[in-house]
Amino acid sequence: MVREAASKIGGIEPGAFGERIMELADRLAAWSENSDGLTCTYLSPAHRSVAADIRELMRQAGLVTEMDAVANVIGRYAAGEKAARALIVASHYDTVRNAGKYDGRLGVLTALVLAEHLNRLGRKLPFHLDVFAFSEEEGVRFSSSFLGSSAVAGRFDPTLLGRRDADGVTLAAAMREAGLDPAKIPVLARRREELVGYLEVHIEQGPVLLEEGLPVGIVSAIAGSVRSMATITGTAGHAGTVPMARRHDAAAAAAELVLYVEERCAQAPSLVGTVGQLVVPDGAINIIPGRCELSLDVRAADDATRDAAVSDIMAEIARIAARRGVRMDTQEVQRTAAVRCSPRLQSLLADAVKDAGVKPRHLPSGAGHDAMMFAGLTDIAMLFVRCGNGGASHSPREIITAEDADIAARVMLDTVLRLAEAS
Amino acid sequence: MVREAASKIGGIEPGAFGERIMELADRLAAWSENSDGLTCTYLSPAHRSVAADIRELMRQAGLVTEMDAVANVIGRYAAGEKAARALIVASHYDTVRNAGKYDGRLGVLTALVLAEHLNRLGRKLPFHLDVFAFSEEEGVRFSSSFLGSSAVAGRFDPTLLGRRDADGVTLAAAMREAGLDPAKIPVLARRREELVGYLEVHIEQGPVLLEEGLPVGIVSAIAGSVRSMATITGTAGHAGTVPMARRHDAAAAAAELVLYVEERCAQAPSLVGTVGQLVVPDGAINIIPGRCELSLDVRAADDATRDAAVSDIMAEIARIAARRGVRMDTQEVQRTAAVRCSPRLQSLLADAVKDAGVKPRHLPSGAGHDAMMFAGLTDIAMLFVRCGNGGASHSPREIITAEDADIAARVMLDTVLRLAEAS
Repeated sequence: MVREAASKIGGIEPGAFGERIMELADRLAAWSENSDGLTCTYLSPAHRSVAADIRELMRQAGLVTEMDAVANVIGRYAAGEKAARALIVASHYDTVRNAGKYDGRLGVLTALVLAEHLNRLGRKLPFHLDVFAFSEEEGVRFSSSFLGSSAVAGRFDPTLLGRRDADGVTLAAAMREAGLDPAKIPVLARRREELVGYLEVHIEQGPVLLEEGLPVGIVSAIAGSVRSMATITGTAGHAGTVPMARRHDAAAAAAELVLYVEERCAQAPSLVGTVGQLVVPDGAINIIPGRCELSLDVRAADDATRDAAVSDIMAEIARIAARRGVRMDTQEVQRTAAVRCSPRLQSLLADAVKDAGVKPRHLPSGAGHDAMMFAGLTDIAMLFVRCGNGGASHSPREIITAEDADIAARVMLDTVLRLAEAS
Repeated sequence: MVREAASKIGGIEPGAFGERIMELADRLAAWSENSDGLTCTYLSPAHRSVAADIRELMRQAGLVTEMDAVANVIGRYAAGEKAARALIVASHYDTVRNAGKYDGRLGVLTALVLAEHLNRLGRKLPFHLDVFAFSEEEGVRFSSSFLGSSAVAGRFDPTLLGRRDADGVTLAAAMREAGLDPAKIPVLARRREELVGYLEVHIEQGPVLLEEGLPVGIVSAIAGSVRSMATITGTAGHAGTVPMARRHDAAAAAAELVLYVEERCAQAPSLVGTVGQLVVPDGAINIIPGRCELSLDVRAADDATRDAAVSDIMAEIARIAARRGVRMDTQEVQRTAAVRCSPRLQSLLADAVKDAGVKPRHLPSGAGHDAMMFAGLTDIAMLFVRCGNGGASHSPREIITAEDADIAARVMLDTVLRLAEAS
């Protein structure tokens, strides 16, 4: 099945893309901040080594390369016409701590192997193919994500330059130390009229494709999230001496909230809600919790669904607090809008997926991605690749197969060629 | 009313005991591990200073003093006959973190002022009066309580010597560093035939006496507790990408357990159950909890009531684990039997309480106390003193009044004299 599609796109041996991607993912994973796992955060020595290696790979692929002011690595497979618009194919090369090898990098490497292939064939496109390896998406070092893609999308928040990492180094200082000039960030912004669209391959980071036996899926929308922190203040007391009926237990109030979030967020298909942080500070085995702190993350493929859930959760918080005689303070710390992927690009991807012999499956992304930054600026679309290990993500257990990577690369190549035909 | 009892026991000005106790409680509270509250855990510098000060106070009271191998401070007001038996009047001088000034120390200081008074009068008793300031009852530093009293009662568990504190220091190493010899612990055990009985004054740590308008109460029984630690292992995952129905959220399982404990332990009057420690280790706002750790403490005035609750909780844990596809491991870390106070000593206390013009109120103790260690070895009894602030305990809000402390000391003196007469 894959062969049919391959025949359309030129002589590439089945499996060759996948093998190359897996080999390069291993190669990039060799650089890490720690010896017993993969960690590659913004502008660390490992991060700079990976950037240099990606740039070298792009150069060997015949691309015109550049490292920009936020350490994005860019390789242009130039169109025949210099004045042509550009198709961005991108993802990020930074990682979380103790990461897997494919989150972000799979998208960078898929874009790279396409460019290598087109260059080998000498096949020119009616648009520039701009391969972007974004420098930062995970938000680990400066607790702010999308540093790389936000700059290119013209959405970089300059107040972040004063933000400090765990060692007290500001973002601006870290950039200067790496030879980058923060003053040049504004000029990185691409303009709407220069762009054909934006495509990104990413591992799914969840179990849907795995459970449905599909190697790839087409992202329909990227969920927006509302994140809050809650502090519950009850009354501490001796675990042996305060009758149950007289307690104002902060942890019991938190428990009610956790179960309500779980129940409420099960009521719509794309809706998810998570209490990821939960702690009774200085809790003791024999003390009734006087305080409990927790985080809340609610997402859905559309904002209305998500906001209705958040609103219900806030109402329930007020009810729990009143009934239990505890105080529950919440603070919203982040709110991002859901974005829809381009129907036109989704349709091109779906045709390519079909031609690869795979049932086109459209699914929302619960995770945020660099693609979100380009929503509103140009048409965006994403292709998900099946994860193994139950959908393990942000973990060394994150895996994909070479076969799936191969299918993804072929689908992307096919899509780029379909887009070229349509241009 | 108090004056009548006082007239019986020699010239002590009404209020003098109470004032002295309050003054000394303030004095001991001046040593703390932290500058913004009272914390005095086993063998910390603050703890050693308090021990030295108590020993000095005992010396000034004419007692023969000693610090034993577990850092108990002992002062003997000797009987005329060297071969006489001993009455132990005791409590502990360590505290929880961010403690009140009276938990434990009230009992030590009440015993001290009695000894001071008897010594001033030159009134000899037919038994030795052994004032014990036990070094450890709260279980903060080594997660094991009653280190001091268990040694004297011959119930010290030598395997605890290998237990480590938060800094990795073993109990044995901490003792040696303080100049104590763990090898001498076994010889601290008192023998049944040497003892007249055991008396302890303690703040109630609950709201019962406060709500009933009584300064003191007579403890009928001390609840036994079963304590366990639970570790829940679910499946970590990305908060955005794993549908609710496919989650194995360790914190949600913990939440169900917290609410079950609360509901089940409301089903019998003296029964209480508490999850005091609750944490998602290394929790992140965007990660489904793969692990959650919590503590469980269940108590009742009788063991059958408590054990039935624990058994139901364990069965519920198995049900939650099976239904949610998580693993829930529990480890029982402590089990103490409920103990009844001596009817004879309760009766002597009740007579003294009546003579002080107070209605004798017998009530169970939900909190564990050093007295428990002596159950089975000798007759035990306890006198509770009313707490203010709604019964606040293990908190800087813990308070008593000088008037109530005074009544307690007079009742205790009266009881000791009644016991002397009956001997």
